[in-house]
Amino acid sequence: MIAVLKQGVTEAQKQNLINWLKSLNLGVHVSEGEYQTVLGLIGDTSKVDIDLLSGLDIIDNVTRISEPFKCANRRFHPQDTVVEIGSGDNKVKIGGGNFAIIAGPCSVESESQIIEVAKAVKASGATLLRGGAFKPRTSPYDFQGLHGEGLELLRKAREATGLPIVTEIMSAAHLDMFMDVDLIQVGARNMQNFELLKELGKINKPILLKRGLANTLKELLMSAEYIMSEGNENVILCERGIRSFDTYTRNVLDLSAIPVLQELTHLPVIVDPSHATGKSRLVKPMSLAATAAGAAGLIIEVHNDPIHALCDGAQSLTPEQFDDVARKVFQLREFI
Amino acid sequence: MIAVLKQGVTEAQKQNLINWLKSLNLGVHVSEGEYQTVLGLIGDTSKVDIDLLSGLDIIDNVTRISEPFKCANRRFHPQDTVVEIGSGDNKVKIGGGNFAIIAGPCSVESESQIIEVAKAVKASGATLLRGGAFKPRTSPYDFQGLHGEGLELLRKAREATGLPIVTEIMSAAHLDMFMDVDLIQVGARNMQNFELLKELGKINKPILLKRGLANTLKELLMSAEYIMSEGNENVILCERGIRSFDTYTRNVLDLSAIPVLQELTHLPVIVDPSHATGKSRLVKPMSLAATAAGAAGLIIEVHNDPIHALCDGAQSLTPEQFDDVARKVFQLREFI
Amino acid sequence: MIAVLKQGVTEAQKQNLINWLKSLNLGVHVSEGEYQTVLGLIGDTSKVDIDLLSGLDIIDNVTRISEPFKCANRRFHPQDTVVEIGSGDNKVKIGGGNFAIIAGPCSVESESQIIEVAKAVKASGATLLRGGAFKPRTSPYDFQGLHGEGLELLRKAREATGLPIVTEIMSAAHLDMFMDVDLIQVGARNMQNFELLKELGKINKPILLKRGLANTLKELLMSAEYIMSEGNENVILCERGIRSFDTYTRNVLDLSAIPVLQELTHLPVIVDPSHATGKSRLVKPMSLAATAAGAAGLIIEVHNDPIHALCDGAQSLTPEQFDDVARKVFQLREFI
Amino acid sequence: MIAVLKQGVTEAQKQNLINWLKSLNLGVHVSEGEYQTVLGLIGDTSKVDIDLLSGLDIIDNVTRISEPFKCANRRFHPQDTVVEIGSGDNKVKIGGGNFAIIAGPCSVESESQIIEVAKAVKASGATLLRGGAFKPRTSPYDFQGLHGEGLELLRKAREATGLPIVTEIMSAAHLDMFMDVDLIQVGARNMQNFELLKELGKINKPILLKRGLANTLKELLMSAEYIMSEGNENVILCERGIRSFDTYTRNVLDLSAIPVLQELTHLPVIVDPSHATGKSRLVKPMSLAATAAGAAGLIIEVHNDPIHALCDGAQSLTPEQFDDVARKVFQLREFI
Repeated sequence: MIAVLKQGVTEAQKQNLINWLKSLNLGVHVSEGEYQTVLGLIGDTSKVDIDLLSGLDIIDNVTRISEPFKCANRRFHPQDTVVEIGSGDNKVKIGGGNFAIIAGPCSVESESQIIEVAKAVKASGATLLRGGAFKPRTSPYDFQGLHGEGLELLRKAREATGLPIVTEIMSAAHLDMFMDVDLIQVGARNMQNFELLKELGKINKPILLKRGLANTLKELLMSAEYIMSEGNENVILCERGIRSFDTYTRNVLDLSAIPVLQELTHLPVIVDPSHATGKSRLVKPMSLAATAAGAAGLIIEVHNDPIHALCDGAQSLTPEQFDDVARKVFQLREFI
Repeated sequence: MIAVLKQGVTEAQKQNLINWLKSLNLGVHVSEGEYQTVLGLIGDTSKVDIDLLSGLDIIDNVTRISEPFKCANRRFHPQDTVVEIGSGDNKVKIGGGNFAIIAGPCSVESESQIIEVAKAVKASGATLLRGGAFKPRTSPYDFQGLHGEGLELLRKAREATGLPIVTEIMSAAHLDMFMDVDLIQVGARNMQNFELLKELGKINKPILLKRGLANTLKELLMSAEYIMSEGNENVILCERGIRSFDTYTRNVLDLSAIPVLQELTHLPVIVDPSHATGKSRLVKPMSLAATAAGAAGLIIEVHNDPIHALCDGAQSLTPEQFDDVARKVFQLREFI
Repeated sequence: MIAVLKQGVTEAQKQNLINWLKSLNLGVHVSEGEYQTVLGLIGDTSKVDIDLLSGLDIIDNVTRISEPFKCANRRFHPQDTVVEIGSGDNKVKIGGGNFAIIAGPCSVESESQIIEVAKAVKASGATLLRGGAFKPRTSPYDFQGLHGEGLELLRKAREATGLPIVTEIMSAAHLDMFMDVDLIQVGARNMQNFELLKELGKINKPILLKRGLANTLKELLMSAEYIMSEGNENVILCERGIRSFDTYTRNVLDLSAIPVLQELTHLPVIVDPSHATGKSRLVKPMSLAATAAGAAGLIIEVHNDPIHALCDGAQSLTPEQFDDVARKVFQLREFI
Repeated sequence: MIAVLKQGVTEAQKQNLINWLKSLNLGVHVSEGEYQTVLGLIGDTSKVDIDLLSGLDIIDNVTRISEPFKCANRRFHPQDTVVEIGSGDNKVKIGGGNFAIIAGPCSVESESQIIEVAKAVKASGATLLRGGAFKPRTSPYDFQGLHGEGLELLRKAREATGLPIVTEIMSAAHLDMFMDVDLIQVGARNMQNFELLKELGKINKPILLKRGLANTLKELLMSAEYIMSEGNENVILCERGIRSFDTYTRNVLDLSAIPVLQELTHLPVIVDPSHATGKSRLVKPMSLAATAAGAAGLIIEVHNDPIHALCDGAQSLTPEQFDDVARKVFQLREFI
C-alpha cells in the first residue's frame, strides 16, 4: 500500500501518522520527493481501512498494491477452479475448460410448465435447469414466486429429466429449504448481502454469485471472498449487465469482465445475456459474443408461455429459439 | 399504462395481445395513428409486469402512467408524514417541517468512546445518536463491528444522554436484538434486500431507508413500499450519494433528490453528507447545501479518535468540527 | 408523440396547451382516463422540443413514438448501407455483409514506422490503415500528433501498400488537408461537435463516427443524421466503449450496441476494442466477441515500437499479436 | 508518478523499462517490496503518457502524484482568480468572494423578447445577460438559433440595459463574430473540443467553460488548462450536471464539485441549475443549495413566453419566478 502525503504537511503530522501506522504492525518506507512524500506500507495491509486513510486531511491519495482478496486470487491459486454440480451421471462441471448452458424459465409456474421446459432445454443441450421460486421484484405488488412449492416443482423436474437445478436464494432464513438445490444462486441485488454470503460460506454447495448492478469486478471478487473465507470454495461468478445512462437495453453487458476476471481469479465466469439485455432478440448475438470472449457457461431464460410463443419475444426465448441459440453456441465452442 | 406497438404488427398479433391484456382484467383503449398503434391500458395496471410487456417483439415501448407505489405516494397522501422517534422527553420528530441532526461514530468502539461522542454531539444540538454495531464491509477481512456488544454500548450512551439511538441492521435474523433500537437503519447495500424489508414492515419501529448506490428514486420508493405495504408507515428516506465515473469523491451526492422525492412522496427525506463524499472537509458545504435544498435532517459522522483529531480529517468530523457545522446548519434552517 | 398530463390540471390549462400544440400544426387526440389525461400528438412531431414539453408543470411525461432520425432510420431504408472506401483495386466495402479490419498505430510517428506497420498489417489481412495525425489529448502538454506531416506520411504508406487511409479530424478548419484521406474519423469527444458534423455532411467522403463516452445509441444516430441530412450518406458507426464506475478497464465495451444499432439503422457498425479496453491483452477476446456479435469490422491499434515489443503489452498490439488476432477473427467470420 | 510492477517481472524486463524511463529524462527510484517492485519517477512527469505506461503488460498500476495541470492549479497560484467581465460601470466580477447571477432565455428569439427579459432580470438583480444565438441541439431538425442576428439582438439588449452579454460559441470559425461578446461560453458538448479551446486561449476575453456530461473534475481542469496554457487566464468553470442512470431529472447536479474544485484550482466555479435539472420547479432549491455550497455565481434560464407563463413551468423560469429565486439567493449570500 502506498500513501502520498499532501504538500505542506508538517514534520510533526508526518511523524504522528508514521507512528500510528507502525502501531498497526506495518513497516513504513519513507520516500521524499521534490514536491511530495510517499509512504510505502509493508506487511499485512489487508487490515488497513483504505477509506479511513484516504480521508485523512494530510493524505493526497492511497493506492493498494496487493489485492485484499486471498482465496479468490489467481496469484495464490494459479489453476482454474472446476466446480462440480449435481451428482452421479448428471454431474456437470463448469470451469477449467468445461462449458455448460443453464436454461429454464424466469419463474416456476406449474408442474407441467417446468417439466415441459426442462425436457425441451435438455433436448437442446442444456445440462442444468434454472427456475425462480423466490423472486426479487422491485415492487411488492409483483409476483414473488411460488416459494416452497416452486422448489418442489423444480425437484420434480429434476426427477423427470435428471438435470441438476439452479435457483435463487433471497435470505439465509430459507437455507433449510435449499439444501436439496444443486446450485444456489445469489442475485445481483444481494451481491453485497454479506450476512447471506457468510451463511452460504458455511455449507457445502456450489454457489452462483451474480455481479451487482453497479459493482466493480473487485467488489464482486470480495463478495466471493466472503463465501470462500468461510470455507466454501465452489463459487461461480456471473456477469449479468451493469447499469448505465442508456436505457435502450435494460443493462449493459460487460463482456470484458470475462477475460479480466480470468486474469484476477481462478473461479469460473459465466454470462447471463437474458437479464442483461431484457430483450429476447438480443440473446443470440450476446450468447455468441460471450462464448467467443471465453465464458465458461451461459444462463438463458426459456419458457413455453403462449403469449411469448405468439409474440415471438420478450426476454425469454421459446424452446425453438433456444434450440437455435444452443446449437450455434456449441458449434462456436468447438470452433474455439 | 400505455403500450406502443411496432410498425408492421399484424392484425392477428394485435388481437392476440389485446385478448391477453383483457384476460388480466384490464380495459384496453386502442388508438390507431398514421405510423403506429397505441394501446391505453385501464384498470389495475400495478400487476402488469412492465419488463415482460416491453420485451415483447411486437412492442415498441411501454410507459407506466400511474406510479406503482401506493402507500408512499403523495398523490394519495398529500400531507407530510411526521416520523416520531424515541419516547418521552427525548422524542424527536422528523418531517412535516421538523428538522433533526443524527450524529455519532461510524462504529461503536468502546463505552467511553460512544458516551463521550454522544455527550459532545448532544451539546452541539444533535438529537439522535448514530453508531454502527453491525458493519457492512466490502472485505470480509475488515472490521465488522462489535455486534451485540455494540448495541449494548449504544443503550448505555442513550441512558447517559437521553438521545434516541440509530443503528444499521443487516439481517432479519438479528431483529430480536434490534427491538430496543429507536430508529433502525437499512444501509445502501440492503436497499433491495426485500426479505429484510418485509420483516421490517411487520414491526412498529421507525425505519431509516438509505438509497442504494445505483438505484433510481422510484426504486427507493418501491423499497419503502415493501416496508409500508406490510403495515409500517414510519419510514424516513436518506440520500447518501450515487456511484459515478468520477472517483474524486466516493460518491456523487444527488441533492435534487430532496425536492424530487418531496414531490413524489409524503415521507421525510434526510441526507448523509459523510458517506456521500467520504471526506470530512466536504461535510460542511454539503450539509449547508442539503439544508438549503430542504432536507428534513442530516446524518453526520463524528468521533473522537486521536488519529483523526490529530490529522484534522477523514470522513468523520471531530466534535469541534461538528459543533461548527451544526451551528451553521441550525442558523441556516432559521434563515429559511 | 404522447404527452400525459398531471392529475389536477384544470380544463383551462388543458385547453391552452392543446391550442398551443395545434398552433404547431399538430393534430391532438385526447384520451381521458380515470386518473389522467393522455394527449396523442399526430403529424410532424420531429419539430416539437421534447425537453420543453416535458418540463411544463402540467405534464407528467412525454414519449416520442416515431424516432426523430430519418436518413439513418432502418424503417425508411430497410436495406443495409454498404460504404465504399478508397478506389480501384484497393477499394474496400464495409456493411451489407462486407467485413474489414482497420489497423495501424495510434499516432503516425515516422515514415519508417508507418510504412513498416502498414506492410505488416496488410500481410495479416487488414484492408485499411489507421494512424493519428491530429490527436485529441486530455492534456495540452501531451503529444498532439505530427499534423500535416503525419497526413503526408500516411499518404506515403498508402502509396507503398495500396491500403486506403483512415485518420481523425478535429476541426472543420482542417478539412482542406483531409480531402485526400479515404475515411475521415470523428472521435468520441467530437461526436456532438455539430458544426464539424455539418461540414462533413457537405463533402463526398466516407465518415467513421465514433460513439461518445456517455452518449446513448439514439444520440449517436442523431449525430449521424447531422452528417446525412447535409447530403453525405457514407457513414460508418463505431462502438468504442462507454464510461462507467469501474476503472479496471478504460471503458466498458457495449457489444449489444451492435445488434441494437442493426435494428435501428441501415448503417454499418464496427468496433474498436483497443480504445475500449485500453489493454492489449483484452483486444483478442473482445475482437472475437465483437465479430461473433455481428460487427461489420474492427479497428485495432498496432505498432512496432520497441518498448511495446519488449513488454508485450500496452493498448497496441505488436504486428505478431495482430497477426494472431486477425487470423482468428477471419476464421470466426467464416464460421459464422 | 509511481508505477507498480506486476509480480513475476523478470530482471531484464525491469531493466528495459527503467532504461526507457531514463531515456525520457526521468529519475527512477526503485523500491523492492516482498511481493512487488515500485518505481518512483522523478522529474517532469507531465510528459509521460499514463495510458501507455498503465497498459504495459509488466505494469500493475500507475498513479500520478503531481497533477498534470499547472496554470489552473491552486498549488501554484494560491489566491483566487477574479474574472472581470464587461467594462465601465457595468463591469462584473466573479470569484474571490464576488458573486453574480447570469440570467436570460435559452435562445434569443426576437428583439422585444430579449430586451424585455433583460430588463426584467436586471430589475431582479442579475448582472449578466445570457441568450443563445448558436444552439447545440441533439437533432439537426431542432431550432439551431438565430446565429448572427441573435448576436446582434444581444448587443441591442446590452445597449438597452447595460448588462454584459454571455453566449455560447460552437466553432472557432465563428470567433470573429464573438469578439464583441463579454463572456464566451463553451458548452458541455464542446468541453473537449480542443481545437476550439486552443483558439479561445489566444484571445483576451473571459471564457465560461462548462463541464461535460461525463467528464471528471480533473478533465474539466485539463480543458481549462488548454485555454490558459495559450495565454488566456480568464476562465470561469461551470458545473451543470452529469449523466447518470436515473432519468427523473435530466442530469445529476454534482454540488460537491464546488468545494472540490475550490481545493484544486483558483478559478471561480458557478452552477447552472436550469440545465442540470431540466425542470423549473427544481431551480429554486438547487440555486439555494449551490449558493450554500459556496458557488461564485449562478446561470439561470428565464423567459417570458406565454406558454411558459401559462403553464407555470418548463426549464425556464418566468421573470416573476426568477425574481423570487434571485431575492432568496441574495439573502442567502448575505447570511453566509
